[in-house]
Amino acid sequence: MNMTHTKEFLPSCPNAALLTDLYELTMLQAYWANSMHDDAVFSLFVRKLPKQRNFLLACGLEDVLTYLEELHFTPRALDYLYGLQMFREDFLHWLSSFSFQGDVYAMPEGTACFPNEPLMEVVAPIGQAQLLETYLINQYHMQTMAASKAARIVLAAKRKRVIDFGLRRIHGIDAGLKSARSFHIAGVQATSNVLAGAAYGVPISGTMAHSFIQAHDNEYEAFKNFARSFPQTVLLVDTFDSLEGTRKVIQLAGELGAEFQIQGIRIDSSDLKELSFELRQELDTADLHGVGIFASGSLDEHVIQDLIESSAPIDGFGVGTKMGVSNDAPYLDMVYKLASYAGKGRMKTSPGKSTLPHQKQVFRQERETEYIQDILAAFSETHPGRPLLRQVMHNGERLPASRETLAEMKDRAHNELASLPQALRNLSPAQKAYPVRISPYLDQESARIRAKSLENNSF
Amino acid sequence: MNMTHTKEFLPSCPNAALLTDLYELTMLQAYWANSMHDDAVFSLFVRKLPKQRNFLLACGLEDVLTYLEELHFTPRALDYLYGLQMFREDFLHWLSSFSFQGDVYAMPEGTACFPNEPLMEVVAPIGQAQLLETYLINQYHMQTMAASKAARIVLAAKRKRVIDFGLRRIHGIDAGLKSARSFHIAGVQATSNVLAGAAYGVPISGTMAHSFIQAHDNEYEAFKNFARSFPQTVLLVDTFDSLEGTRKVIQLAGELGAEFQIQGIRIDSSDLKELSFELRQELDTADLHGVGIFASGSLDEHVIQDLIESSAPIDGFGVGTKMGVSNDAPYLDMVYKLASYAGKGRMKTSPGKSTLPHQKQVFRQERETEYIQDILAAFSETHPGRPLLRQVMHNGERLPASRETLAEMKDRAHNELASLPQALRNLSPAQKAYPVRISPYLDQESARIRAKSLENNSF
Repeated sequence: MNMTHTKEFLPSCPNAALLTDLYELTMLQAYWANSMHDDAVFSLFVRKLPKQRNFLLACGLEDVLTYLEELHFTPRALDYLYGLQMFREDFLHWLSSFSFQGDVYAMPEGTACFPNEPLMEVVAPIGQAQLLETYLINQYHMQTMAASKAARIVLAAKRKRVIDFGLRRIHGIDAGLKSARSFHIAGVQATSNVLAGAAYGVPISGTMAHSFIQAHDNEYEAFKNFARSFPQTVLLVDTFDSLEGTRKVIQLAGELGAEFQIQGIRIDSSDLKELSFELRQELDTADLHGVGIFASGSLDEHVIQDLIESSAPIDGFGVGTKMGVSNDAPYLDMVYKLASYAGKGRMKTSPGKSTLPHQKQVFRQERETEYIQDILAAFSETHPGRPLLRQVMHNGERLPASRETLAEMKDRAHNELASLPQALRNLSPAQKAYPVRISPYLDQESARIRAKSLENNSF
Repeated sequence: MNMTHTKEFLPSCPNAALLTDLYELTMLQAYWANSMHDDAVFSLFVRKLPKQRNFLLACGLEDVLTYLEELHFTPRALDYLYGLQMFREDFLHWLSSFSFQGDVYAMPEGTACFPNEPLMEVVAPIGQAQLLETYLINQYHMQTMAASKAARIVLAAKRKRVIDFGLRRIHGIDAGLKSARSFHIAGVQATSNVLAGAAYGVPISGTMAHSFIQAHDNEYEAFKNFARSFPQTVLLVDTFDSLEGTRKVIQLAGELGAEFQIQGIRIDSSDLKELSFELRQELDTADLHGVGIFASGSLDEHVIQDLIESSAPIDGFGVGTKMGVSNDAPYLDMVYKLASYAGKGRMKTSPGKSTLPHQKQVFRQERETEYIQDILAAFSETHPGRPLLRQVMHNGERLPASRETLAEMKDRAHNELASLPQALRNLSPAQKAYPVRISPYLDQESARIRAKSLENNSF
């Protein structure tokens, strides 16, 4: 482990308890005022996949556990709430000693998952479990979306290097940091984001921008000046004309002789395919076989797949905006829904938005090394297959099972991707969705509770 | 001013100097090592509009100025960089006393703007100005995208109330907070995000979720319990069946008599139009004319426009995900480009990505109260019209002109939206883009520098 990186580099938010929708707090007061303190089960899941996704990679657990451990209302937060003249003073007094005391079950980060499967379940007194909703979705949504998009790009790039260049257009600094981590879990080798390197130990990467070239009176001088500071760098050759730029790199090799250690050239233009063949030939003719070609500029999984299929001589891809904002699916239909209260299964019956009752488990069944189906069951059931949810917190304290290194998550994601049926790993929508079967017991319970609630709008 | 809200509620990031792409730091060392300390001008602008946008609203200045004032490398950050074995020790020593000493010019927040117009320009020694790139784009991009999307929703809603429900699916907590502020500048009245209320003084709003209803054995009891804590609340009526839910609100009015103060009902389903007419009639028949109807659920500007055009009796809109992630345009083609170094204009000449040289000013010309065209000129020029960029920082210190209240920004945005030609205020793409004319001088300079650079790849 690299001791120079540590979570202390992350932004701190002492008032994260207020990072919530106001209705969580009003409901909390109403539960409290009505002495409703029984345990609830809430499930965090995605209702349906965006049409451009065949699977998701669960991410976000670590940040949520940190939040749950540290959750409290500071005196400043209580002052603010008091000033709203909306809450009872005795309730705010009670809030001053609030902490999370519940149990949490979750899929480990990097697990492949599907609609209706809980990524996390919270079992806690209802007010406690309710309050978490907004923050939990915010973190799981963003990180799962990011990892799921990156997985497609990693699959498209086959074994070639992919680097995250997204920070500038990812939405804000929290997403910038945590997406870099989620991308890395999904198989992206490195990030340009220096703070993500410091905070998480994600390898960092980066060389030069067009502005460095433009600040010099000529391109050759710029290359030489940069190589003097960073002999093993990658030189950006397309500021004026990529072929001319590459010829200057070749000229530099001639001038530096044995001292020439440049690792590659970068092209950041639209005609990457044609250009890469042309420049590869130019470099090879000059005997610079060891100088790689690195491509960037509006890349996404489709462009990369096309380059790979045409055998373009590109050694790595810098992917920015489209991975960073998950451009083709910038949100998931992720929700956090009540599944049980006071020992009774609860569900929403609205058309198209109905939910499943009870605490749940997911059993993943495989044949040889390929996943064949999941069984979505009540937590008390036993089915063949590997259970995906494990307990990560008990009475508000993290369990050892919740502590994993980034390398472990990355390895898991790699194995999960390799075990998905091939049709799901393709970029195009799979004709047949991955089968998630509801257990007969859960199905009966769902029908029973639905019938009762429709009869008299009650449970 | 409400003294209970303050920026101290915002997350803090003492190592924000590392929130940058690695190449900014490598370039900084190369500039330093090559004694390149002359002043550079960098322009932050959007190259072209997404096809679903006719204009943008500039946002992000306040956070960028705070970042610039506080920018420094902590001993921990320097340790991390040292551990990379990539940088020179004497360079890292120089970084330890780094601070931003430059000048900044910017459009005030809430200004309507168009492609190629600088939202901000930085004039500083080149290494300083370069280092800022990633953070500046990250903040301006996210906030301008958010305000520009919200402006469309506000325009579609006519004068009806719009509330931001986006926190759970906005990408991360930084974007969640700052989008709430950007939305408010664009005319969104309130947010569900409590911390955004605490930090910025944005009015907050929120009542109850489906889970509150479901936690009760029946819906009527849930309404009664909630109204006891919050007599003037809005009750969510669609957990089971919206008409039945509304009848329970009417029943509650009967039971409470003069004590009944419920302000409205909320529907969160897909058939909002039909439902709103039906429920309005039900409420009116019961003489509950004062109980409003509030709608939410997958809303965007198009759905809202359709509801408004069909005169659906809806009094306010809660808008979440689609505004929160700017679903139809989740990124802007925003860049930060070198425009001048050591007194010489600089530009990029790559096809489709060429830039304009020199420090710039934008002059906005209007006829009566309608904007007719902008002139994009060199900063030294004078043209008729209102200059949009003002100096906000001198030698690294904020100028009084940079300090505005949220109310001032909100008023500005309101006036800007009202002054745009009607075709730009429509949701559909305007047939004719707003005219941004390049001044003859800037045009000549651009041609002169381009010719020279194409001749010998130099300036």
